[in-house]
Amino acid sequence: MRTLIRDLLGATEASDSIVAGGWVRTRRDSKAFSFLEINDGSCLGNLQVIVDHGIPGSDDLHDMTTGASVQVEGRLVASQGGNQAWEVQATSVRLLGKAPEDFPLQKKGHSPEFLRSIAHLRPRTNLYGAMFRIRSRMSFAVHRFFQERAFHYIHTPIITASDCEGAGEMFRVTTLDPTSGKKQDYSGDFFEKATHLTVSGQLEGETFACALGQIYTFGPTFRAENSNTSRHAAEFWMIEPEMAFCDLEGDMDLAEEMVKYLVAEALENQDGDLSIFEKFIDKGLRQRLEFVAANPFERISYTDAVEILQKSGREFEYPVEYGHNLQSEHERWLTEEHFKRPVTVFNYPKEIKPFYMRLNDDDRTVTAMDLLVPGIGEIVGGSQREERLDVLQANMERHELSLEDYGWYVDTRRFGTVPHAGFGMGFERLLMFVTGMQNIRDVIPFARTPGHCEF
Amino acid sequence: MRTLIRDLLGATEASDSIVAGGWVRTRRDSKAFSFLEINDGSCLGNLQVIVDHGIPGSDDLHDMTTGASVQVEGRLVASQGGNQAWEVQATSVRLLGKAPEDFPLQKKGHSPEFLRSIAHLRPRTNLYGAMFRIRSRMSFAVHRFFQERAFHYIHTPIITASDCEGAGEMFRVTTLDPTSGKKQDYSGDFFEKATHLTVSGQLEGETFACALGQIYTFGPTFRAENSNTSRHAAEFWMIEPEMAFCDLEGDMDLAEEMVKYLVAEALENQDGDLSIFEKFIDKGLRQRLEFVAANPFERISYTDAVEILQKSGREFEYPVEYGHNLQSEHERWLTEEHFKRPVTVFNYPKEIKPFYMRLNDDDRTVTAMDLLVPGIGEIVGGSQREERLDVLQANMERHELSLEDYGWYVDTRRFGTVPHAGFGMGFERLLMFVTGMQNIRDVIPFARTPGHCEF
Repeated sequence: MRTLIRDLLGATEASDSIVAGGWVRTRRDSKAFSFLEINDGSCLGNLQVIVDHGIPGSDDLHDMTTGASVQVEGRLVASQGGNQAWEVQATSVRLLGKAPEDFPLQKKGHSPEFLRSIAHLRPRTNLYGAMFRIRSRMSFAVHRFFQERAFHYIHTPIITASDCEGAGEMFRVTTLDPTSGKKQDYSGDFFEKATHLTVSGQLEGETFACALGQIYTFGPTFRAENSNTSRHAAEFWMIEPEMAFCDLEGDMDLAEEMVKYLVAEALENQDGDLSIFEKFIDKGLRQRLEFVAANPFERISYTDAVEILQKSGREFEYPVEYGHNLQSEHERWLTEEHFKRPVTVFNYPKEIKPFYMRLNDDDRTVTAMDLLVPGIGEIVGGSQREERLDVLQANMERHELSLEDYGWYVDTRRFGTVPHAGFGMGFERLLMFVTGMQNIRDVIPFARTPGHCEF
Repeated sequence: MRTLIRDLLGATEASDSIVAGGWVRTRRDSKAFSFLEINDGSCLGNLQVIVDHGIPGSDDLHDMTTGASVQVEGRLVASQGGNQAWEVQATSVRLLGKAPEDFPLQKKGHSPEFLRSIAHLRPRTNLYGAMFRIRSRMSFAVHRFFQERAFHYIHTPIITASDCEGAGEMFRVTTLDPTSGKKQDYSGDFFEKATHLTVSGQLEGETFACALGQIYTFGPTFRAENSNTSRHAAEFWMIEPEMAFCDLEGDMDLAEEMVKYLVAEALENQDGDLSIFEKFIDKGLRQRLEFVAANPFERISYTDAVEILQKSGREFEYPVEYGHNLQSEHERWLTEEHFKRPVTVFNYPKEIKPFYMRLNDDDRTVTAMDLLVPGIGEIVGGSQREERLDVLQANMERHELSLEDYGWYVDTRRFGTVPHAGFGMGFERLLMFVTGMQNIRDVIPFARTPGHCEF
């Protein structure tokens, strides 16, 4: 029975008989024995194995090169060297699979661009192995956060006939052949109408919040936008909680609590994986995360934010004007330079926000909120929703939305409407924030961007 | 601050001041006071609220009809009646939203078909509220099961340019307009090639298992099959673990352990929600689940299964013949009538299985396995994968698969190949098994089936 290297490295006592498997990272040979460093993906650390020449399987040592797979039996003993607590004195080794000379991950540095072109192999490197273990643990922490608070996880649909207005360009989903050159219409399509990939589960999520009280989604969402930036992917995972009997303040409270919880998780439960990001990606990473976890966030209205920006004396590429959305440079200046901590900006002009946000009594602003963090800018965006049937319907007319298509959504306001609020957080943004990685392509197992759908 | 009704009903002591919100299920009036039963979706149980006529807000009592939303302040006191431990003596009530007479969920029975047509409202019923709370908790249990065992959660891509051979018909994903009637080709499409919605994350999952050791996926998968059955949906969620250094036996062990774990979860941690399925859907539900959780599963080879079926004396609609896939009726007879327990059937003829399954030494069978459970039939399907480069390549040639398109997949066998195995479980199948629900449309928030993509 194989033991994970993670468990061997964390052992509390020596053992006469263990079995480990893994991929060779390095091999060093001396006259009478060889050292193998093997990694099995269970953690960042390698297991050091001492292979005396002459033990069963040692004749294959010359093929146990970087990338080759091996199985080892032996004794777990206290290490003589200073780098690890435990090592294995092998009693037999077995070569499972060679890694010929054209194995692309020889022991040397590789560019992120090159590693993206071998996304199926890059998790075998220290950095990307750590990245995707952190992605897994952070995913679980998201679920744990909400489940501990009695939120229900809802699988909102991926294929949809509606959209969440203004969220972005959509992909079509069809069984028709667009290259046929023939005249076709949607009556012959699988769903007998035009359908797309979802850009947000919010509208469906609201219907469930108005039944189960507190819900969240965590699933893939899509944008067919032809933008080649380091921050955008065509397919990404989004977290969208929605709460009945909740207003803007409760919404901002939950967003702050969630970000702090997830940042604390990144600091505490990464089994050593975070260290490689501190070492090679962002020296100030831990300090920044500790600061965010420990300090209160700032809250200011959009109106105040605009005033602060205008009085800043700072030359921005885009001018700051009331009635326009804040640009990324404005958001980052607020959080990184002015407040030097996370900031939630709330109450935006109604003209620049979607139809579903609740109108404030001033009749000029809606209860939108964006949570900004240093190094990233906006990480969460949400709002209290418009629960008043007449106001919502007027908004929909102004936005030229079909009351018929959205009748199901409007029903939540027709039958027992309640104040409710929610937000969305791009999971990849969070991962970039907690690891310091600068390109979204490097925090997704197989990234989809314009012109790129490999693997 | 609102307290969830779940927490009020489970309170350990009385309280002088509580706030609750919810939707009215029923109201009974007497001369001096009214009883409101309200539900907030946090649990199956309702909170009983005694509203003395004359307290603030009680003038609106006539509008507090089934489906209306209310907020209640008052004292949590020991209940005088026998149905619950606690009730609320209101000091004020507030009508938040009326539910006019056309609210479709008046207090009476509704057919599943009708409720599907109002999928945005049906979670406000007892049965579907319980259903989707169970779906949430079972989702979390899936994550907990794998995370406790040091499996890493991988988000394999939804949009893909490959397929998992033989899994089924695929949806196209495109930004081209199939109704344009114009000659178009994929060079003008978003990804500059034909792309589809994934039918399985297995192949990408294998590449991560061959780096991180033990991984699982849990995400949406798609089939564009024009089949209108109670078991098939176009969009459903699938769980796919994959383990390096693992053979068929380890694979069957994990599948059994997982099914037992999830069935035990369904029995133990449903906060009372399971009871409604026992009462109205399947009287034998608990007994069946307890049996599965407590007893060992059977394991037999496909060859033995065929022999048992042929000797059964039973008239099947489809004849049983070596070399053909078992039909659902055969699978159900084996598990329900012959063994009367879950059965794992393994080692199927190679001709009826996909290219990636490992060939056995008999040269006739591959290491496929299906786990069958009473009432459902196949709930898990998996295999040890073919890790030998030459055998895999020969399989791919026989299946006419392009070695170029699948070069990345083949790389896992070229560089440090390891024995590995995995399986897939349809999450909706599991939910149908643990609730007794007979139609997949009733365990998915918004089901997608041929001709149906509402909401």
